[in-house]
Amino acid sequence: MTFDFLRTIRFQDTDAAGVVYFARLLSICHEAYEASLQASGIDLKTFFSRGAIAVPITHTAADFHRPLLCGDEIIVRLTPTPTGPDSFEIAYQMLNAGGKSAAIATTRHVCIETATRQRHPLTPELTQWLQQWSPTDSSPTAATPPD
Amino acid sequence: MTFDFLRTIRFQDTDAAGVVYFARLLSICHEAYEASLQASGIDLKTFFSRGAIAVPITHTAADFHRPLLCGDEIIVRLTPTPTGPDSFEIAYQMLNAGGKSAAIATTRHVCIETATRQRHPLTPELTQWLQQWSPTDSSPTAATPPD
Amino acid sequence: MTFDFLRTIRFQDTDAAGVVYFARLLSICHEAYEASLQASGIDLKTFFSRGAIAVPITHTAADFHRPLLCGDEIIVRLTPTPTGPDSFEIAYQMLNAGGKSAAIATTRHVCIETATRQRHPLTPELTQWLQQWSPTDSSPTAATPPD
Amino acid sequence: MTFDFLRTIRFQDTDAAGVVYFARLLSICHEAYEASLQASGIDLKTFFSRGAIAVPITHTAADFHRPLLCGDEIIVRLTPTPTGPDSFEIAYQMLNAGGKSAAIATTRHVCIETATRQRHPLTPELTQWLQQWSPTDSSPTAATPPD
Repeated sequence: MTFDFLRTIRFQDTDAAGVVYFARLLSICHEAYEASLQASGIDLKTFFSRGAIAVPITHTAADFHRPLLCGDEIIVRLTPTPTGPDSFEIAYQMLNAGGKSAAIATTRHVCIETATRQRHPLTPELTQWLQQWSPTDSSPTAATPPD
Repeated sequence: MTFDFLRTIRFQDTDAAGVVYFARLLSICHEAYEASLQASGIDLKTFFSRGAIAVPITHTAADFHRPLLCGDEIIVRLTPTPTGPDSFEIAYQMLNAGGKSAAIATTRHVCIETATRQRHPLTPELTQWLQQWSPTDSSPTAATPPD
Repeated sequence: MTFDFLRTIRFQDTDAAGVVYFARLLSICHEAYEASLQASGIDLKTFFSRGAIAVPITHTAADFHRPLLCGDEIIVRLTPTPTGPDSFEIAYQMLNAGGKSAAIATTRHVCIETATRQRHPLTPELTQWLQQWSPTDSSPTAATPPD
Repeated sequence: MTFDFLRTIRFQDTDAAGVVYFARLLSICHEAYEASLQASGIDLKTFFSRGAIAVPITHTAADFHRPLLCGDEIIVRLTPTPTGPDSFEIAYQMLNAGGKSAAIATTRHVCIETATRQRHPLTPELTQWLQQWSPTDSSPTAATPPD
């Protein structure tokens, strides 16, 4: 099961070149990540507060294919994948209204203890979130394709 | 008829104090303005591009009543009012999930010719938008013009 | 003594209209506020962290006079004024490279205990900051208290 | 010759986790890029306007090593490299006050005709900028490291 996040491009997303500012596309990917966490029942207030456990981003990358303009309705398709007992990666596909790729991006996240910044196993709620949205979850019994 | 815009507070809206950054609340009000324009059939790509006519903000003000946190679901209630042949004002009420006021804000806009920056009468699409969302539109006693 | 903050307008400050996004000007005012705190020896890490005392903004207003473009070098002239034992107001004047007003703005701040959100007297470091940058400080005829 | 850009981390750069928001670090890299263009005499108003030629970012990547806090004074060390007749890449090294790496990043840029979005040779001013800040410029005689 993939997670699709619908987003309208806003005026403040754009810059003087008339299109979405490059770094803003990564913020929009993060919004999709937040929405997927909420869809799994995770409380964002707690999750993104400075609690005992945090899941900072250690790496990001993006390729920009087509410019996006104010008012554009886009889909951000999010696919998380576990990469270890304490880490995961998210792939994002940004599709414009015509279904063409506007951009692709990835973020890598590592679960840490906030106080020591030492790695910490993924929390049960993150494991559940990964199972819910990861394509590998339903694979053994996937008699029908996920979409 | 008022225009209600639903918005989830995102991580990037917050700052190190753990709540929404003050200026970001004004950006969120502007998102509500954009959504109301779209709801009136106005094409945002054209409207917010550098065309012959622009409607810059000349004044803004806001009072902040309650902090908003990441994940909060808020309503931005928007009420536009004409203030002259070439200008209007928008009042915004930001309500938190409990229906209490998180903030109120206003923006004043003046219609200008982009090239000369001289005032220009409101365009027909803006006049229609004002009629659609302004509370004075349906006023049965509006024998006199609003200003 | 007034505090002058020099700032170059950046690409990310602009929007598709080709000029600085209105809410961003308030963020730039806040940068000037931060720089003035630093200039008084206040540690920003502590000041803007979620400590026992916070100084949230309760009100803001701005008038926009001239558009600002990417690359513009501006001055933000900041003047704080105490408004009570637990509050102050800051006036900002934004001057473009030609010395003309691009915008004026104000922010009002109230000192609170973070836990209870009850008002709390201004801290000694804020009182000193007010004395340093407030025009009433160096007034040779200040026979009356500033408020 | 490398280009060093000094930047103070601002409150609006941070998020509710108390540190700089990941995508904001890429915006700060772009600020360094803009500053390097200005240092080569390029007029940013024209360069980042919607003129006949544009230089959009086609790819970006970043690794985050250490969190940055409000008030931190950082250096962004920028090194551009030509990657073809119509493209270049910029490497950014973000150093914290202690001289340790907070992050590294790259952006890839392609010169295009805005109207057709077809590739276009780098303009003379960009070629000069590349020569000024690229480490390959001084390479023939670089018996000693550039700094």
